[in-house]
Parts: sequence; C-alpha cells; structure tokens
Amino acid sequence: MFSHIRIVLVNTSLPANIGSAARALKTMGLRQLVLVDPKIFPSSEATALASGASDVLANAKIVATLEEAIADCPLVIGASARSRTIPWPMLNAREAGELSRIESEKHPVALVFGREDRGLTNEELQQCHYHVHIPSDEEYGVLNVAAAVQVIAYEVRMAHLAHKEVGNKSVMTFSTNSAWDEEIVPASDMEQFFAHLEAALVDSGFLDPNNPRQMPARMRRLFGRLRMDRLEYNLLRGILGRMQVMAKEITQLKKG
Amino acid sequence: MFSHIRIVLVNTSLPANIGSAARALKTMGLRQLVLVDPKIFPSSEATALASGASDVLANAKIVATLEEAIADCPLVIGASARSRTIPWPMLNAREAGELSRIESEKHPVALVFGREDRGLTNEELQQCHYHVHIPSDEEYGVLNVAAAVQVIAYEVRMAHLAHKEVGNKSVMTFSTNSAWDEEIVPASDMEQFFAHLEAALVDSGFLDPNNPRQMPARMRRLFGRLRMDRLEYNLLRGILGRMQVMAKEITQLKKG
Repeated sequence: MFSHIRIVLVNTSLPANIGSAARALKTMGLRQLVLVDPKIFPSSEATALASGASDVLANAKIVATLEEAIADCPLVIGASARSRTIPWPMLNAREAGELSRIESEKHPVALVFGREDRGLTNEELQQCHYHVHIPSDEEYGVLNVAAAVQVIAYEVRMAHLAHKEVGNKSVMTFSTNSAWDEEIVPASDMEQFFAHLEAALVDSGFLDPNNPRQMPARMRRLFGRLRMDRLEYNLLRGILGRMQVMAKEITQLKKG
Repeated sequence: MFSHIRIVLVNTSLPANIGSAARALKTMGLRQLVLVDPKIFPSSEATALASGASDVLANAKIVATLEEAIADCPLVIGASARSRTIPWPMLNAREAGELSRIESEKHPVALVFGREDRGLTNEELQQCHYHVHIPSDEEYGVLNVAAAVQVIAYEVRMAHLAHKEVGNKSVMTFSTNSAWDEEIVPASDMEQFFAHLEAALVDSGFLDPNNPRQMPARMRRLFGRLRMDRLEYNLLRGILGRMQVMAKEITQLKKG
C-alpha cells in the first residue's frame, strides 16, 4: 500500500531540505521520492541530513516537470499555504492522509510539495485534485518543506494504523471513488482532456484564445475535481469531438 | 491556552535543530521554548533555521537541568523512541496533543525532547508523567528532533481546533467546499441543467432520444457529484447554449 504513495518535491532549493524530507517520509514508512527539477542534487548535505534514509535519496526519481512526476497518478494532492484566487477542493492534513491511504490501495497517489520560498505556482496547484493545508498559526504559518512532509506522511501512517485497527471501514467518509466501477483516469489523460476542451471551446466560438480570462483555470478546477473514470472520460471527449465537428461543418457550409 | 504549553529540548547538539524546532512550534501557535544545557546557544545557524521564529529563540529560557525546566509543571510528557525496560504510561502523538490541550487550560504543560543521538536518559524519562511515541516505521523510526516537535505541536493544535469546534463541526469532517467563493447551486437548478444537457446532446446529434441507454444516468452521476457553484453552472449552461446555437445554424445553413 505505501508503495503506491510518492512524495513529490518541486524545485527545492536547499539540499538540506531534500535530505530532511527523505528522512521524514522514511520514518513514516514511505519510500518513494520524486524530485522535480531540484536546484542541487545529489549533494553531500542532502545525504548527511537524510541520515539513515540515504536509500530513499539513492532511489529518488528526478524529472524535469510536475507533469512527468504525476503522469500516472489518478490522485494528486498539492500542499498549499494560502487561499487562492479560485478556491480549490481543500483537505486538511488528516483528511489528506486518509484519502491517500484509501486510494493508494488501488493506484498511485502523489503528494506534492513546492518551493521553500513560494510553494507551488498557481499552474502547478491547478494540476492537483485537492489542496492540502496544514492548520497553522494565523500570524506565522510557514512550515519548512521537510516539516510539512513529516506531518502529512505522519497522517498517512496514522490513517493506515487506524484502518488496520478498525478493519475495513474507513474512519472518514469520502463521497468519491470508494467503490467505483471503472478505473479513474490518470493525470496525463486529464491534460489531454483540458487541451481538447480548450480547443473545442475555441472552435465553437465560446472561448477567445486571445482573452481566456479565468476560464481555463475555472474549467480545470471544475473538471479536475470530478476525478472522472474511463467511461465518463470517453463520453466527455466524445461530446467535445462532436462540438468540433459541428464547428467545422458550419465553416464548410458557409464556404460552400 | 497555548501560553501554558512549553517545548523543552534537552542537551541538543546541533544549533540547526534548535532553530528548526523553534520554527516548528511557532507554526503551530506555540511560543515557549526551554533549552536544557544546549551544546551551542545562541548561534547564527539556529537563528537562520528559525526563519521568522527568531523571537522564540530570543525568548527561550536556558536552564542547566531538566528538573529546573519542568519544576512548575503538573504535566510532563517525554518523547520516547523505544520501549523501556520499565513500561511507562504511553501516549501516542494524538493522545499527547489532546491531553496537553486539556491540562493546559489549568496549568503549565511540558513536552520534552531528548538528544539527537540517544533521546532522553532513563532517569529523565522517569521524571515524566507520560511518554509519547510517534508511531513510526519498524525498521527506521528515528525522527529528527525538530520533526518530532513539529508532529507533537501539530497534534496539540489539531486538538485545540477540534475542541473549538465541538458541538457543531469537528475538524475531522470532510471539508470540501468549506471556503468556496460562490454559492453551490441547489437541486432545482441542477434539474434544469440536466434537462438542458440532454436537449443540447440531442440537438447536436450526440444522444439518440429514442435510445439514450445509460447516458443520462452517467451524466447525472458525473455532473451531480461536482457540487457546482453559480459561476461554474453559468459557464456550463453557456457551453450547452452554444452547442444548441451551432446545431441550429447547421440546420438553417443546410436548408438555405
């Protein structure tokens, strides 16, 4: 189960934080670390701070973009310190732990953490199905990135332990995916969906590509939180295709 | 209430850990740090890692022995990694958070953390009323001292938040939509949406009204679980309207 959960660190500046994060996740029984475009890696400082978790560093996967890190993940949860212009489905750390536990039984789950100074960008956050916020002090809420990894990984472990004790019943109920009939599509398919959606809206004259305003972000939030399954995905792609066919037909009819 | 809870670090070797611990406790709303015979303090490294929590370091109390640090505390909880020869009353991190919260309303509470390499001595542990253990990996359970402070302080904060909300809503409940920017549309609007969706799919030739199969049900499940807000609702209705306009245009162009 824990083998399905990966910690993704985006653009980390300080090797010490990578090392501390590796140690943090390993103490909680996790093993998978993915580094998106780290400033410096490998580094002796990271190894020193990883302490007994140097194997996690040695096995860490390095990728260039967040897209690559989460491509095969039907559930992506991103750490977010502040509230955004467009609110997103939010989890607290405990809920994130429980949801990760539940879904990791079926498919890969990514827990994503951003840069030391400014976290994840809006664009990156919009690639996540949920945002997780660790309830913190109103005046001083800035957890160190490794500390945030520690808390979330701790909650994953607690959810796992509670689950083992209680049996097959989840301590919390989530409306989505508990016993779904079809596989949930991974992030890479969703990227294709969003590209298709945008193209279809442009073709049909609904979206001005030169002035999209908030629409792409709102569409991302809307369809992203659906966590759609394969059949639903194909249905919606079919509708988008149909819109494009109609737009083309109009153009040709007008010409002819 | 939090003013009654102090974090006590015993014989810490690395200034970095003191700084990180200061930051960790401050992010969770705690403010009191007591250092028992620190190897090096003050130190620029501690200050650097404390980040915005240098006030916690500046106000830290330095004492020579654990006795002094806990002298006025009716509740002392000590972090313990391993099980001891003499079993002691044990709490997990969550229980420690809750107990600290309860008792801190009445009197000072000390949460004590030991040395980086070997924790608290047996003698020190025996000065504690309870031991707290953070459930960790069987093979690799050694949390960094600042990481341990982060987890325990986090549980203190979670206990506090849960307590504040008692009676109406607990922090444990699923909090999607908790701070949404727009009202969620009621069921009656959704009925209009589904009627509109079906009409648009029929008009555009995607849905055969004489043989709809499972599609209406799947669409209901899909869009129903979105819990869409007013703005999203209007956006989607706008797209459906656009589809109908296109279908009409095609019919007219074909006629003309």
